[in-house]
Amino acid sequence: MTPNQILSPKCIVLLSGGLDSTTTLAIAKQQGFEVYALSFDYGQRHKQELHCATFIANQMQVAEHKIATIDLRLFGHSALTDHIDVPKDQHDPNLIPITYVPARNTIFLSFALAYAEVIGAYDIFIGANAVDYSGYPDCRPDYIAAFEKMANLATAATVDGTKHFTIHTPLITLTKANIIQTGLQLGVDYSHTLSCYDPTPEGKPCGHCDSCYYRQKGFEEQELTDPAFGIDPSR
Amino acid sequence: MTPNQILSPKCIVLLSGGLDSTTTLAIAKQQGFEVYALSFDYGQRHKQELHCATFIANQMQVAEHKIATIDLRLFGHSALTDHIDVPKDQHDPNLIPITYVPARNTIFLSFALAYAEVIGAYDIFIGANAVDYSGYPDCRPDYIAAFEKMANLATAATVDGTKHFTIHTPLITLTKANIIQTGLQLGVDYSHTLSCYDPTPEGKPCGHCDSCYYRQKGFEEQELTDPAFGIDPSR
Repeated sequence: MTPNQILSPKCIVLLSGGLDSTTTLAIAKQQGFEVYALSFDYGQRHKQELHCATFIANQMQVAEHKIATIDLRLFGHSALTDHIDVPKDQHDPNLIPITYVPARNTIFLSFALAYAEVIGAYDIFIGANAVDYSGYPDCRPDYIAAFEKMANLATAATVDGTKHFTIHTPLITLTKANIIQTGLQLGVDYSHTLSCYDPTPEGKPCGHCDSCYYRQKGFEEQELTDPAFGIDPSR
Repeated sequence: MTPNQILSPKCIVLLSGGLDSTTTLAIAKQQGFEVYALSFDYGQRHKQELHCATFIANQMQVAEHKIATIDLRLFGHSALTDHIDVPKDQHDPNLIPITYVPARNTIFLSFALAYAEVIGAYDIFIGANAVDYSGYPDCRPDYIAAFEKMANLATAATVDGTKHFTIHTPLITLTKANIIQTGLQLGVDYSHTLSCYDPTPEGKPCGHCDSCYYRQKGFEEQELTDPAFGIDPSR
């Protein structure tokens, strides 16, 4: 390394393999961070999103991609982790949907905090969004601010007060259409992202769950066709 | 149930199988809670503490005991989860020891929060202690208060503001001797608790790690002999 080369600061990006987290990853890279991506095998209904996350992590050349195995089926109580049907064609943004997983973002961010401390990162990116999913309590700006405050008291890395963890939520006030527009400007290839809560065994989105609904709406508002429909990156 | 019977409120107790968490469980029961105990198989060096936790959960008749499997070896960087020797006969309460596991209490409390939300509990007990282990950042009262604030913004259970999560830390200002005294008054049987960071394969405490040191000191200050020395409840 020559003296003129400046090392990029490291960051953690929570990467599910969906549209939001992939856009978030692109934003982190564009801001000059070296990305350490973290995904979760948490007993979710389908593993295709982990194939997508791995594909995207490679495609977008992250420094490292870890998949943490945590079985949230131990507690159940969500359509994403339990034997409960994913609701179809019911899209009320003011209700907390049954696809809400208790304390999921808190658990995910806690693992991201551990990972950050170990690698010496102070920036954590999460694709939380308070517009289309106002029903999820752990996507609200107040929650994120409270998590950040707690994180700065939680670890050895910040105990002397000279360093500070920041939780970045670059999508939090964007509509799905804005997110797609941002991602396309940054060159994101959405054909390998999977947002569906209940895809077919072949990895095709169902087209009827909340997540498919908001994604399709976002592409339609941009007068675009979703390139991911029908594509399974694990194949 | 007759009209005069009042249901006990549910609580979560984080139970490692050591002296502190067992005393915390006894305090929760004495306060009238129905206890749901949560332990972690997190890739720690030894599993004897999980045998102890299971034994104690049965002995103290908890309503339910769950063991969550989360592999913190994914990140490593602690003598409790990595190939790093546990320090012996070095007990500086002002240093953060290498047995500190990055973000461990944050991860444990996050799981407790998920469990609480699922069963309808609003009280979480953790045996954090800021006296003997002042080096651990995630045992400080400020940290616990920040976690509680975040928890109340994190879940669907408290989103309407009518309910409130409380993180109870009944040991936080007690010395080890005070903790033992409290536990004995509540009838705790310490012979089946294991606090050692590095026990023998037979489950005997090493007698030289930080955890053994503070435990022995606590019993000595009470002019008592530690009944656990040499006992393996898994046998």
